[in-house]
Amino acid sequence: MKKVHFIWAHPRTDSLTAHVVETMKVHAQAKGLMVSELDLYRSNFDPLMHEVDEPKWDNTYPYTDEVLNLFNSLKGIDTLFIVFPIWWYSFPAILKGYIDRVWTNGLAYGKGNKLPVNKIRWIGLAGELKQAYDEKGNGEYMEYLMNKSLAEYCGVNNSKVEFLYDTIGFEGERDAAHYEKLFVQANRVVEEIAG
Amino acid sequence: MKKVHFIWAHPRTDSLTAHVVETMKVHAQAKGLMVSELDLYRSNFDPLMHEVDEPKWDNTYPYTDEVLNLFNSLKGIDTLFIVFPIWWYSFPAILKGYIDRVWTNGLAYGKGNKLPVNKIRWIGLAGELKQAYDEKGNGEYMEYLMNKSLAEYCGVNNSKVEFLYDTIGFEGERDAAHYEKLFVQANRVVEEIAG
Repeated sequence: MKKVHFIWAHPRTDSLTAHVVETMKVHAQAKGLMVSELDLYRSNFDPLMHEVDEPKWDNTYPYTDEVLNLFNSLKGIDTLFIVFPIWWYSFPAILKGYIDRVWTNGLAYGKGNKLPVNKIRWIGLAGELKQAYDEKGNGEYMEYLMNKSLAEYCGVNNSKVEFLYDTIGFEGERDAAHYEKLFVQANRVVEEIAG
Repeated sequence: MKKVHFIWAHPRTDSLTAHVVETMKVHAQAKGLMVSELDLYRSNFDPLMHEVDEPKWDNTYPYTDEVLNLFNSLKGIDTLFIVFPIWWYSFPAILKGYIDRVWTNGLAYGKGNKLPVNKIRWIGLAGELKQAYDEKGNGEYMEYLMNKSLAEYCGVNNSKVEFLYDTIGFEGERDAAHYEKLFVQANRVVEEIAG
C-alpha cells in the first residue's frame, strides 16, 4: 500500500488550507493510499532553530530527538504533500522552521544522505490571481526554489508545485463554486500519485 | 540625529551574524548614527502567526499589542538593517515570522499605509561562494523578493541587499583575514547610510 504524508501549516482548522488538506486526505484514502499527517500548528512544532540543531558540517554530534523523530517519520513514504498558504511568496514561518530544522545536513542531504521519500508535491495557496504571479515571475522562482534548491538538493528529483490561486475570502464571502474548483484541482494531484 | 534600527536573527550571540551586527552597530555609532536593535532570538519573539494576527482585509479589528508595539517601534527610523544567515535561500523562520506578523495589512501596506522607514538594507550571510549564487540565480531572485515584493510593496523604494559570501566555518576554523573583509564590507553599508 502506497504511503503518503501530509505536512501542512495554518493557524486555523477552519481555514481553506485545512479544508484542502481534509479533501485531499479523504480522496487519497478513497484511492487506496495510506495517509498520515503532520499538522504543524496543532503538533506544537517549534520552528526556531536552536544551537543544538544547527547543521553539523562535521557530523560530530546528533540532533534533538524532535528533529530525529520527525525525520524518521518520513521513512517509507512514497509522496510528501506539503500544503500551505503562500505568505510573501514563501512559506509561513512554522513551515520554514520545519525545513530549517528537519531537512538538515547528515540527514536530508550531505554524505550521500537524502530525504527518504520518492516524490514531493507542494500545494501553495496564493491570495493573488495566476496572472499576477505570471507577470511578476514569483511563481516561476518559487517552483525553482522548491523543486531544485530544496527537493533536488535533498535527493528528491520528482517534485512539483501546484498553485491554488485567488484564495482570499474563504470564510463564507465567496461563492462555493470557486472553492470547489480548487478542491478538484488539489484532488487531481492526489490522483496523479494514486495512479 | 539619524536613527538606524537593526533587526537580526541568529540563535547564537557568538555567531558570525552577531559579530557582523556588533561591528555595524559600533561603526554606526562612531559615524554619529543613533542605534537601536531588535535581537529576535533574545527578545523571545514568537514567529508563529496566530488567528488574532492574521491580516485583516476589512480592517475591522486590531492586532495584538506585540505586533502593534513592534510596528510602532519603527517610527522615526531612517534605515532598517536586517541581518540574517541565509537558510535555503531565504530567511530563518524567526525572521520570516517577524515579517509575516508585523509587516501586515493596515499597518505596513494597504489603504495608504507603509513601513515608516526611509530605507532598508538587507545583510544576508551566505554559506556559499558568490559564483554559486550567480550561477543558480538565487541571489538575483532574493534581491527581487526583498527589494520589490517586500520593501517596495510596503512603500519603501530605497532597498538594497548586501550578500556576505562564504561564511561557514566562523568558529575559529577559518583565517581572520577573510572575516575582516566581510566586516569591512558590512561597514561600508553603514557608511553609505551615514553619508
